[in-house]
Amino acid sequence: MIPLRNDRLLRALLRQPVDATPIWIMRQAGRYLPEYRATRARAGSFMKLCQTPELACEVTLQPLERFPLDAAILFSDILTVPDAMGLGLSFAEGEGPRFAHPVRCANDVEKLPVPDPEQDLGYVMEAVRMIRRELAGRVPLIGFAGSPWTLATYMVEGGASKEYARIKGLLYGQPALLHRLLEVTARGVTAYLNAQIAAGAQAVMLFDTWGGILTPQDYQEFSLRYMRNIVAELQRESEGRTVPVILFTKGGGAWLETMAETGCDALGLDWTVNIREAKNRVGRQVALQGNLDPCALYAPASRIRQEVATVLAGFGPGSGHVFNLGHGIHPQIDPEQVRVMVDAVHELSAPYHDE
Amino acid sequence: MIPLRNDRLLRALLRQPVDATPIWIMRQAGRYLPEYRATRARAGSFMKLCQTPELACEVTLQPLERFPLDAAILFSDILTVPDAMGLGLSFAEGEGPRFAHPVRCANDVEKLPVPDPEQDLGYVMEAVRMIRRELAGRVPLIGFAGSPWTLATYMVEGGASKEYARIKGLLYGQPALLHRLLEVTARGVTAYLNAQIAAGAQAVMLFDTWGGILTPQDYQEFSLRYMRNIVAELQRESEGRTVPVILFTKGGGAWLETMAETGCDALGLDWTVNIREAKNRVGRQVALQGNLDPCALYAPASRIRQEVATVLAGFGPGSGHVFNLGHGIHPQIDPEQVRVMVDAVHELSAPYHDE
Repeated sequence: MIPLRNDRLLRALLRQPVDATPIWIMRQAGRYLPEYRATRARAGSFMKLCQTPELACEVTLQPLERFPLDAAILFSDILTVPDAMGLGLSFAEGEGPRFAHPVRCANDVEKLPVPDPEQDLGYVMEAVRMIRRELAGRVPLIGFAGSPWTLATYMVEGGASKEYARIKGLLYGQPALLHRLLEVTARGVTAYLNAQIAAGAQAVMLFDTWGGILTPQDYQEFSLRYMRNIVAELQRESEGRTVPVILFTKGGGAWLETMAETGCDALGLDWTVNIREAKNRVGRQVALQGNLDPCALYAPASRIRQEVATVLAGFGPGSGHVFNLGHGIHPQIDPEQVRVMVDAVHELSAPYHDE
Repeated sequence: MIPLRNDRLLRALLRQPVDATPIWIMRQAGRYLPEYRATRARAGSFMKLCQTPELACEVTLQPLERFPLDAAILFSDILTVPDAMGLGLSFAEGEGPRFAHPVRCANDVEKLPVPDPEQDLGYVMEAVRMIRRELAGRVPLIGFAGSPWTLATYMVEGGASKEYARIKGLLYGQPALLHRLLEVTARGVTAYLNAQIAAGAQAVMLFDTWGGILTPQDYQEFSLRYMRNIVAELQRESEGRTVPVILFTKGGGAWLETMAETGCDALGLDWTVNIREAKNRVGRQVALQGNLDPCALYAPASRIRQEVATVLAGFGPGSGHVFNLGHGIHPQIDPEQVRVMVDAVHELSAPYHDE
């Protein structure tokens, strides 16, 4: 086995000492990179890009060629799992995701299978193995999945939604049915993440993009509960190291305490939370990842450095912080601005890690 | 002057004793009502509906004919103010608002006038006077405006936005210019609300729909600061009564304490906040308005009553609560579900107001 040459990410996620704060970027392999757009054009469609391991591997590695990032993240989509459950995922050009067979009634839920990751999502596992080979120990590879609540939102709405009328109608009108949907989805996600770990993912992240549209009580019952179950079922050791688990609920800043109690290793923070306050609330239990406003990258270089400095100072001295944006990078961002941020994180964080 | 026969709203907003918890509904005059859709069709366009006092008056009163609501709210749009500043507002069928002349540079900001409410927004003032006459003291009339930050968001983006790239670009790249825009907009909003009060509005509400996309620090600097200035400049006495002021930042649940310190009388709560915790945090300073999930109205009647009961029990005994949804009612909601909610609020809240 090739030893990992840069393990800042894994160490920071476990709150072990590091020489500088590690950084990776949500959607770091994405449309803001011209080389990504070129590969995407060659692939023909977004789904083809996800489903062709060579191309998924290629775009996963692209941002690492440009920037000294401390992690790679598998290029894929959270909706591959419902696709493997038979919902028929597609992406229309310039639009969001769409399911040909959304989940609308008890019968739809009952017939949902738990996908076998190696059989039904083999293209993802193949991409994971290929990326690990290509990385050759440069940085660790992060695997990921959508939270059951977030996946169910798309599965029931049939795509992206503004008002969430259908999923909320189910929540308020047929909560037992929604729980059955979340249950089967959670089993699918657990198997999927464990398969990613077996294939070589060295950390995993659960993206709960829509947990923040719930009431505090419903968040506990319909989102966090299933994430907690998944965390408990994950294979947390692989290749002789701990595989850290990161939970991220966008808009979930009010619920960090209960998120930290799931047994996860780290929490993702969006930009509406002050990282110092977040650390005061939960910093003894978990590491924190985030939380620069993705829009800060529209600023001039000097202002980007200042914003990076503010986040780093907010977390303060010691390990347990993984720098990231508070949400995915926008397609319009100039890659040169990204370089300013990445360099600023490494340079300005070093003093916080002196013994 | 005709005396006010139902003053529950005004009393609750000032935390004075009431016999039952008052209720009104954000967007209560709206597309979920067939009679609204009929008037809207007669008007020809949404702008015409806003700009014709007779029609604005008609739709304002429609929900009161159906339900025993405790307040009317002026039918209008928050974007009438930027329209009066020369931005050229229109609404394409089935789409959001659009400005013909968005604000994009220093020159655009410098030439923005502060509209004279009676001259440039006379149709709104005329609607307020007409509604007051037609209400004839049944319930109080609430006036409203958008917060400067929220208005600036539309003014700079040119319409609704998903990523807020332009306004955030301004915030991070040219903060002084953004402050000038917010300053002139705040002066316009102040004059507009004071004119509504002079014309007969008996309470006013500031809608900060997009304050929740800001970092905690930027929320203070770019949104709350201007709302605080407006609150300080409002004419708080009219017709021998206090005119209560309500602040509502959607997604601002983390910032209630600082919102309460602006000198406003009440805070609107969306559904992501627990109202009991909100009351514990700020209930001695302000009244609270909200906070049922608008999606709860998709539920069967029994579940709606249960959800109403939960919110009422959350606030607990005593005055200082105005029942409302946590955001505008969805167009798909069946009016009969609204009746269930309104009746449940009055019926189930009475025990909380016994001496």
